[in-house]
Amino acid sequence: MPVIDAKTRVCALFGHPVGHSLSPAMHNAAFEELGLPFVYVAHDVQPGCVARALDGVRVMGYRGLSVTIPHKVEAMQGVDQVDPTAQGIGCINTVVNEDGRLIGYNSDGRGALNALRDAGVDPLGKRVLMLGSGGAARAIAVTLACEAPPERLCILGVQLDELDRLVADAQQRGTSVVEGGELTDRSLGDEIAAADVLLHCSPIGMHPHEDASLVEPELFRPGLAVFDAVYNPRRTKLLKDAAAAGCRTIEGIEMFLGQAYVQFELWTGQPAPREVMRQVVEAKL
Amino acid sequence: MPVIDAKTRVCALFGHPVGHSLSPAMHNAAFEELGLPFVYVAHDVQPGCVARALDGVRVMGYRGLSVTIPHKVEAMQGVDQVDPTAQGIGCINTVVNEDGRLIGYNSDGRGALNALRDAGVDPLGKRVLMLGSGGAARAIAVTLACEAPPERLCILGVQLDELDRLVADAQQRGTSVVEGGELTDRSLGDEIAAADVLLHCSPIGMHPHEDASLVEPELFRPGLAVFDAVYNPRRTKLLKDAAAAGCRTIEGIEMFLGQAYVQFELWTGQPAPREVMRQVVEAKL
Repeated sequence: MPVIDAKTRVCALFGHPVGHSLSPAMHNAAFEELGLPFVYVAHDVQPGCVARALDGVRVMGYRGLSVTIPHKVEAMQGVDQVDPTAQGIGCINTVVNEDGRLIGYNSDGRGALNALRDAGVDPLGKRVLMLGSGGAARAIAVTLACEAPPERLCILGVQLDELDRLVADAQQRGTSVVEGGELTDRSLGDEIAAADVLLHCSPIGMHPHEDASLVEPELFRPGLAVFDAVYNPRRTKLLKDAAAAGCRTIEGIEMFLGQAYVQFELWTGQPAPREVMRQVVEAKL
Repeated sequence: MPVIDAKTRVCALFGHPVGHSLSPAMHNAAFEELGLPFVYVAHDVQPGCVARALDGVRVMGYRGLSVTIPHKVEAMQGVDQVDPTAQGIGCINTVVNEDGRLIGYNSDGRGALNALRDAGVDPLGKRVLMLGSGGAARAIAVTLACEAPPERLCILGVQLDELDRLVADAQQRGTSVVEGGELTDRSLGDEIAAADVLLHCSPIGMHPHEDASLVEPELFRPGLAVFDAVYNPRRTKLLKDAAAAGCRTIEGIEMFLGQAYVQFELWTGQPAPREVMRQVVEAKL
């Protein structure tokens, strides 16, 4: 680490708990790589105390924050302005302090979008199928609708209230045709056949249930691009099955890295040193 | 610097401005020397915002703070408990966060007291003459009265209201005989002749007025110990004259270091690595 002195700018993570977060090691390595006078620390903030902590950030002159579970919704109430995409998503994971004015962003969806584009899979104008309607699904669906509208975005889920809200919000915010439906064997089969890009945003397949997948292997076909928001394990059964069928695949770690690159660039105004950040994360996963 | 990760505990400086403070480099070098998972940053907090910043510290789980000009009085209003010596002084320069409860201390006087003791000059039971009645004088006079009571403490000053308050506060807090008087050639000559220890706590002799001193050289005598709270320059005219007359002398830098050692030990529970901290400060002064 470079010497931290009285001119060092401070960024931090707000979460609860925070003890296992990779973000401090990742962002500090990135600051060091570019020789920037920044440091990143982690704060374990109790639920219900986020607005007070944000006010501290405002008057202590922090440069920015990452906000993680369970504070992403609560934090949105404590900032001074919310970026339109984050408003559509309904929560923030990033704060930038512009001279005492806190601006909230959500870089999760942008991280996924950038990861798709880096893999040669731009959802703009494509037919996109999303599975799941929770937090990751909201971030990605609204970001795509706002910033890279697919021709058609179909969202299949099992929590129908949550699904309906997400479909309405994504529809309202962008120009895509957005449709939703209950996730069944039949709807899944029909919609995969009609999709260019599959975005898996449910927790199915996450450790310790690595053998699970929502999608039967025979539904994959070459030409379908498949992203899995699950990143533990990195190669989920879904991704293995998709790759075996000739699909292009994008791992969930790319979304985690992608949202961090966006945060880094918002705080520093510099392009994120991606390889260094990736090395830190890969070494710890 | 060691790697800063999600388990690193955070300490900080509150001041306005803070850009030239030596404290971050000094405390970070000390944490590193002992391999402690701590980091120290600086926050420039606007006057009037200290209570909000302290509330942020409380809910973000900072371990502790240094508080410097102009926030030492304002900060006392924003903590949950104030150490008795600091109450007597009327301001704090140190905060320790005990599980969300902020305790305020004043380590300035203790820093000076420790520096005196380290130089073999324990004021306990001695006849002590103090010149000046401002912030440094208050911190030292009340700390001595509380923690190492001289037989007699005489304070000479020119701001008579301020002087009277300090005499009353030091008298009330301890067991010393405390007396005050207007600083004149006559009072100074009489009192120096009766003193074992001289504590200079006025700004006279500070850069850019290095040629000034309150005390005529012929008033010094061997056997008198002389401390100067001024630390820029390190060797003031007062100290040079005193040393030339055979007095033991203690520089103001020892008070700065001494207050930092106390802070370090309050935050970490470990003995401060004094040589490392001294090296950082001496290299920058």
